[in-house]
Amino acid sequence: MPATPVTYTFLGPEGTFTEAALMQVPDAGGATRIPASNVNAALDMVRDGSADAAMVPIENSVEGGVTATLDAIAGGQELRIIREVLVPISFVLVARPGVRIDDIRRISTHGHAWAQCRLWVDANIPGAEYVAGSSTAAAAMGLLDGDAHYDAAICAPIVAQEQPGLTVLAENIGDNPGAVTRFILVSRPGALPERTGADKTTVVVPLPEDRPGALMEILDQFATRGVNLSRIESRPTGQYLGHYFFSIDADGHIADARVADALAGLHRISPATRFLGSYGRADAQSSSVAQHTSDEAFRAAHEWVEQILQGE
Amino acid sequence: MPATPVTYTFLGPEGTFTEAALMQVPDAGGATRIPASNVNAALDMVRDGSADAAMVPIENSVEGGVTATLDAIAGGQELRIIREVLVPISFVLVARPGVRIDDIRRISTHGHAWAQCRLWVDANIPGAEYVAGSSTAAAAMGLLDGDAHYDAAICAPIVAQEQPGLTVLAENIGDNPGAVTRFILVSRPGALPERTGADKTTVVVPLPEDRPGALMEILDQFATRGVNLSRIESRPTGQYLGHYFFSIDADGHIADARVADALAGLHRISPATRFLGSYGRADAQSSSVAQHTSDEAFRAAHEWVEQILQGE
Amino acid sequence: MPATPVTYTFLGPEGTFTEAALMQVPDAGGATRIPASNVNAALDMVRDGSADAAMVPIENSVEGGVTATLDAIAGGQELRIIREVLVPISFVLVARPGVRIDDIRRISTHGHAWAQCRLWVDANIPGAEYVAGSSTAAAAMGLLDGDAHYDAAICAPIVAQEQPGLTVLAENIGDNPGAVTRFILVSRPGALPERTGADKTTVVVPLPEDRPGALMEILDQFATRGVNLSRIESRPTGQYLGHYFFSIDADGHIADARVADALAGLHRISPATRFLGSYGRADAQSSSVAQHTSDEAFRAAHEWVEQILQGE
Amino acid sequence: MPATPVTYTFLGPEGTFTEAALMQVPDAGGATRIPASNVNAALDMVRDGSADAAMVPIENSVEGGVTATLDAIAGGQELRIIREVLVPISFVLVARPGVRIDDIRRISTHGHAWAQCRLWVDANIPGAEYVAGSSTAAAAMGLLDGDAHYDAAICAPIVAQEQPGLTVLAENIGDNPGAVTRFILVSRPGALPERTGADKTTVVVPLPEDRPGALMEILDQFATRGVNLSRIESRPTGQYLGHYFFSIDADGHIADARVADALAGLHRISPATRFLGSYGRADAQSSSVAQHTSDEAFRAAHEWVEQILQGE
Repeated sequence: MPATPVTYTFLGPEGTFTEAALMQVPDAGGATRIPASNVNAALDMVRDGSADAAMVPIENSVEGGVTATLDAIAGGQELRIIREVLVPISFVLVARPGVRIDDIRRISTHGHAWAQCRLWVDANIPGAEYVAGSSTAAAAMGLLDGDAHYDAAICAPIVAQEQPGLTVLAENIGDNPGAVTRFILVSRPGALPERTGADKTTVVVPLPEDRPGALMEILDQFATRGVNLSRIESRPTGQYLGHYFFSIDADGHIADARVADALAGLHRISPATRFLGSYGRADAQSSSVAQHTSDEAFRAAHEWVEQILQGE
Repeated sequence: MPATPVTYTFLGPEGTFTEAALMQVPDAGGATRIPASNVNAALDMVRDGSADAAMVPIENSVEGGVTATLDAIAGGQELRIIREVLVPISFVLVARPGVRIDDIRRISTHGHAWAQCRLWVDANIPGAEYVAGSSTAAAAMGLLDGDAHYDAAICAPIVAQEQPGLTVLAENIGDNPGAVTRFILVSRPGALPERTGADKTTVVVPLPEDRPGALMEILDQFATRGVNLSRIESRPTGQYLGHYFFSIDADGHIADARVADALAGLHRISPATRFLGSYGRADAQSSSVAQHTSDEAFRAAHEWVEQILQGE
Repeated sequence: MPATPVTYTFLGPEGTFTEAALMQVPDAGGATRIPASNVNAALDMVRDGSADAAMVPIENSVEGGVTATLDAIAGGQELRIIREVLVPISFVLVARPGVRIDDIRRISTHGHAWAQCRLWVDANIPGAEYVAGSSTAAAAMGLLDGDAHYDAAICAPIVAQEQPGLTVLAENIGDNPGAVTRFILVSRPGALPERTGADKTTVVVPLPEDRPGALMEILDQFATRGVNLSRIESRPTGQYLGHYFFSIDADGHIADARVADALAGLHRISPATRFLGSYGRADAQSSSVAQHTSDEAFRAAHEWVEQILQGE
Repeated sequence: MPATPVTYTFLGPEGTFTEAALMQVPDAGGATRIPASNVNAALDMVRDGSADAAMVPIENSVEGGVTATLDAIAGGQELRIIREVLVPISFVLVARPGVRIDDIRRISTHGHAWAQCRLWVDANIPGAEYVAGSSTAAAAMGLLDGDAHYDAAICAPIVAQEQPGLTVLAENIGDNPGAVTRFILVSRPGALPERTGADKTTVVVPLPEDRPGALMEILDQFATRGVNLSRIESRPTGQYLGHYFFSIDADGHIADARVADALAGLHRISPATRFLGSYGRADAQSSSVAQHTSDEAFRAAHEWVEQILQGE
């Protein structure tokens, strides 16, 4: 990644939570921002150089793409996560000016957003019919077309703010008020983000098929070096059911000796292990490091062994 | 679950891969089958007794619902998985009679299906525009309406077979020809499916927050009894980011002593552990059991300890 | 073991540290006490009913017998440890009346006691020659014979106190002033000592030869139930070098659910595992028990599994 | 250690099994051989330069010194094991010429040898009385003195062969005919013995007191790198009861990457870990090394991590 990317892509269209995530990146406001129609398209723009980095959802998203992102980044030409961003998930109900809640019969939004607002809809607009939208933003923008088959849309606050043609009929209509979701900024391999002391490292580890207990061996590489995991998911490789890889987030930066050592252990067990990046945690929470897994402990241990080997 | 459920629900609408999965259940053909608009709705019909069981996607689905299913079944009133079903994922391109491939400008389908057919579409209908559909079947059925804004749909073969008003323009257009996906049949708690010797047990384990290394402790409950895991996923609880539960598929049936013992271990570590069912594997592959984790070894060990405690 | 053993044996002769250990047993003062010439002889007296219990050294002894005890109790007819006793190791130098330190040329004691007083002897009686004794007490008593080939003996304070014919020339001459050693009281199998809350359980576990990683599996049975180990020793079985058994002391009583469960796990892995007893710790230090390994957690987990199995 | 030590010491006196072990060292026949009165004395001769190397018992010995050796080598100025030797344990009964078995009333030998010949003595010389000897050889040689208080001795065959004044009355009188015991040759730190492919590494690891589960952590350092253990013993440190160190023999040489890495892990957990040597196994049995713990796997993993750190 160049020091200052000038072209960003993101899971579009404009007005989604993903764009809201991108806007948290310091220089994104003044950069070129290109919406992509799906996660693969966004990542491919980075791979082929059309964009410097892509913002895509990685967890719990209202607009899908989570497992798609896990799978897309696990294969193909290597990419690197260089930042994570948290976005509060807050939904608004929008319609064209003059429309009242009582007038609403059909509502469009992304399927996941619909699922997260069902309780509110059932309580406030009983009997409302769902119309599929490819994203929350697309559903909202569709209202501005003359031929929309629905009366209202559920979308992110960002859309309503930017579109004078839409009226907000209700705010915070999500069933889980404190919901937050996580996005990642993905770039081509290059210089690693600097260690901040509150970092996260993401790897993809194919499960060796020829050895029972391989999963425990994989996780033990982290445990034995005191490295905590904050996410683990087994994913079928897609080749055939039964072959798996693991997508794992671990605390710490590969520049931390305990993380580097754990990754070396993973590589031995599963040589096709893929490093997806070390980057600052969005919540900036550093985890405590025991003395015996500190960089200093690793350095001292290495020196001790070297001295023995040299017969000193 | 009654011996013979008479009412099934499934993630609808009719014609989806989920209905194809349901049709593999022996008595489903003659039973009432009610499509549900989303996974939660399907599960709620089981919970409130409107249906005896629900078929929903659990892995790698083209129609989403995977993480939705994991989350929906992990909370709320308890449910039980009583069967798993594998369905080959094969896509067809359909249109109204008389439409040719060269005429197609806009294609509708579910977003996941679209992602899985992109290579074929790019190669064969370059420039085709995507129109979001709430499911593959809904996209196909929409073609029969007079006011569809698209010319073709991508859907499961089952739809085309049942709808004389649709023509199949191309078959097997998925980018991953051998794709298979997995569905589960969910019921209310009751008598367990009988042990077949090739079984799977699904549990949901909230991660205890107050103890470092808890994930390793959880997994060790399986490893120390020789129980293999075939799936593991960490999921945020939704309460706030950073709290997790694990959704785990383990080999074996709770009627196997090693599985029962592992589950007891999980319950001690995380008392809110939820048992989601023991059921026959769709692939009927039994895993070998070491002598020291056999039912006989557990029985002998239990007797040995009891004799000591009784001072014999 | 009868409620009140009336005949004790111990690693003799009279006047050793082992007899001092036996005297700590509440009813030993008034009971018959028979010295045995070696550990095997003492244990055999218990096995054949000639004695109700035997006191023998188990750790760090000045008079040997440690590995002999480990091996003797690991094989043959089953025995049970019913108590452990700690004895401070304090040495005195004794001689016949009239003999002064400057007169001493040759000193007798047990080889281990000699090793533990070498610094004092080198500093205070330089050039003194060592004469082997079969025990500290035998060396001291030998001075009373007319034909002793040595001038002084190193022994336990207990001997000097009981023998008017011996004079103490120096006290506390051991090189390690705070030394303490551990003894065990061994009986035939019978009712277990009651749980005190500060207990210890001893087992002998033959290492299964046919499975790599068996040692870790064995130790994991304790670790996974939160049971600490206070001693572990690998011992060759004596059949041929390379076959091992492990002698292990674990915190807790077999009446503690976590210990019973760990022992059942050992029995599965190594069916010839031998239970050597649960008994109160000599230091009465109880170890803290995590909530998830408490008896209550085991009971609740067992009930939970049973309810599932019964389809409730 | 110089390439060819010219002065050896051993646990004496001459004629013990330890000297028999020393005679197996290729150049020992022509070297100076100095008997030491105990293990500490032998090791101290090496430490102060009076000898180049010391042969001492390390396992299952008939003449004691095992735990003494473990403890003596664990503390004090650092020493290194450079070779291990196996010696078959075979006992003979010797007396002065003219003495017949029926004449024997009192027998002398080392206490451990006595324990190992008890069955034979009970069967063949019922009622024979035991006279303590400081070693088997000392007991035999004592017969040549005019004032011996016993009629016969149990000793190693080597003594009888070299002493024309002794007659062998019975051979192979040990109760365990296949007994073998193990000795080690100890030197000052210096160049390591070369890797043979069938090596053993010995370490002493103080148990960190401040962390529960430390023992499992220690053993896991070996297990996670596929390094088997052939011996483990917990030993009290002698400071006060309850503080322990572990004496461990592991398969492999510190020049093997998996062993070096495991030792580095030990050093981190317990910085006072002491390396006692890597040396060829007496039985020359090499253990198989899994691909993922080979030197090549370690090298490849290290390079992979380095490339990532350098942003390649």
